[in-house]
Amino acid sequence: MADKARKSGALFRPHFKTHQSVAVAELFRKEGVTKITVSSVRMAHFFASNGWNDITIAFPVNLRETEALNRLANSIRLQVLIDSTFVANMLEQKTTAPLGVFIKIDTGYHRSGLLPEQNREIQEILQILKASNHLQVSGFLTHAGHTYHAKSKAEILHIMHDAQQKFHILKQTFLPDFPTLITSYGDTPSCSLAENCFGFDEIRPGNFVFYDVMQFHLGSCTLKDIAVAVACPVVGVFSKRNEVVIYGGAVHLSKEYLAADNGSTLFGYVVLLNDNFTWDEPIAGAWVSNLSQEHGIVSVPNQLAAKLHPGDLLGILPVHSCLSANLLEKVLV
Amino acid sequence: MADKARKSGALFRPHFKTHQSVAVAELFRKEGVTKITVSSVRMAHFFASNGWNDITIAFPVNLRETEALNRLANSIRLQVLIDSTFVANMLEQKTTAPLGVFIKIDTGYHRSGLLPEQNREIQEILQILKASNHLQVSGFLTHAGHTYHAKSKAEILHIMHDAQQKFHILKQTFLPDFPTLITSYGDTPSCSLAENCFGFDEIRPGNFVFYDVMQFHLGSCTLKDIAVAVACPVVGVFSKRNEVVIYGGAVHLSKEYLAADNGSTLFGYVVLLNDNFTWDEPIAGAWVSNLSQEHGIVSVPNQLAAKLHPGDLLGILPVHSCLSANLLEKVLV
Repeated sequence: MADKARKSGALFRPHFKTHQSVAVAELFRKEGVTKITVSSVRMAHFFASNGWNDITIAFPVNLRETEALNRLANSIRLQVLIDSTFVANMLEQKTTAPLGVFIKIDTGYHRSGLLPEQNREIQEILQILKASNHLQVSGFLTHAGHTYHAKSKAEILHIMHDAQQKFHILKQTFLPDFPTLITSYGDTPSCSLAENCFGFDEIRPGNFVFYDVMQFHLGSCTLKDIAVAVACPVVGVFSKRNEVVIYGGAVHLSKEYLAADNGSTLFGYVVLLNDNFTWDEPIAGAWVSNLSQEHGIVSVPNQLAAKLHPGDLLGILPVHSCLSANLLEKVLV
Repeated sequence: MADKARKSGALFRPHFKTHQSVAVAELFRKEGVTKITVSSVRMAHFFASNGWNDITIAFPVNLRETEALNRLANSIRLQVLIDSTFVANMLEQKTTAPLGVFIKIDTGYHRSGLLPEQNREIQEILQILKASNHLQVSGFLTHAGHTYHAKSKAEILHIMHDAQQKFHILKQTFLPDFPTLITSYGDTPSCSLAENCFGFDEIRPGNFVFYDVMQFHLGSCTLKDIAVAVACPVVGVFSKRNEVVIYGGAVHLSKEYLAADNGSTLFGYVVLLNDNFTWDEPIAGAWVSNLSQEHGIVSVPNQLAAKLHPGDLLGILPVHSCLSANLLEKVLV
């Protein structure tokens, strides 16, 4: 991903919400990464206290956290997002340190952001920023989260190209008056599948560091690319039901699921962990089929149930690695 | 719930996984509660270090945590669950302190436990415990989690009566040789709806301390009984979409959801919070309709969207309060 950004002339500002790990962060540093994205003020504080000094909080500004933003903005290069003149004005009143501000653009996901055609409100926000002592124009930012609902690689790439075009028009309109503004684009499916990311000044994918079963289903990665597993002890073996119960539930894996091919719910794939915590392909016919708070139910082929005992470890490839990493406090790199 | 247990002559050992809060725990102590249930060794350590000295870990023994169990069992009265001779034998080898052991019975949920008719394995486990220097027979324990799939109050009560009968037969069989064994029953839907809990020596409901939208849908509680709300700042208002974006996502509320009456997904109800953090009925026509990692999308009636601004607080009644309390670190009592 770092190479792809470099070859396309884009800044690579990976999203660290996926791992929230100082050790994983250091792997990025070795790839030359010095600027990062996070999804909360708390996460920004955490990475700032671990030596990261250029952070974008890719979440609409929470006006109840402006004191914490000011403290951070006094010590590092900090950027935030807004999507209304209301928040621009409130933030201008409350900000006491240099703060970069992206205008969040809704390129089709329809979660947050201004629509690209809302030129008048975009112009008003830019003027508020221009007149401000502390706020600075960073540019336009989008999260193309609708790629997660796409049905094909072509549809994912179409979403990316659509965002490129929308940003191109915005730049044509506003770059003359605001020559430093940049465009920032994020999401793992399109950044993974696209051969390059020309047309964006910055990309912010995050999930790709681990990938997960959801990304595999979307076609963003292969099974071998999934780089995280949750080590779950077996606590019960029920051969007659072809099921194994693991210590690994909703508080470890999250309740994120996919519809499995056989109509069942799928909360994770199952791998056998080697002594050095590597693993091979997922076990055919095995999947986490249900979760309660601490229990996971794993459907397994009968011959596997016969081999397993309480105390054995199974590796679970999570459906959504970001949520699982958020729930588990430690990651062994 | 304490009254109901008292009137039925049952020990009340509430499940503390729902709240995981020292402050909420003290409310139970005021009701005379001194014995509690938790769902992990870590939670047992947490409450033991806060003065609770009689704890049942209602999760099948994880043989990889026996050292931690021994440490705890040296300082408090500790009970665990098992459901196989394999684990009984392994636990007997590894245990170095007095440890009460419940045999988990599967009365119909089919998650873990021995079936009530597996008399031979139950007998073998009881003999292993009897011969042990450290392990002690606590009795039979079940979690009637299948009440969560019931379609009516009658079905929930039927599940409870069925468990009573199964325990009655087990007691007839094993009480003569093991006169101290007790029966322990848990789950909030049936313990809430039943007028009494005769037939069980102990009950372990937990969720009822907060209740939640799922319990309301099951009929276990009224909306007024829901005693927990997540205070979520508004970060975006999208009047044209009749939607508000809150800082309250999957990492705060969990991805647990219900199918709403209108075919939408429902991740929580919405209340207006008063200055003292009380609230009234949920807002008609408002619900959390989608969640990503940190964002929540709230569908709201148009007249409410017109009144809300970024920085306002909304209260969200969670679908599953246990998972939300696990994700949030602090509770204001």
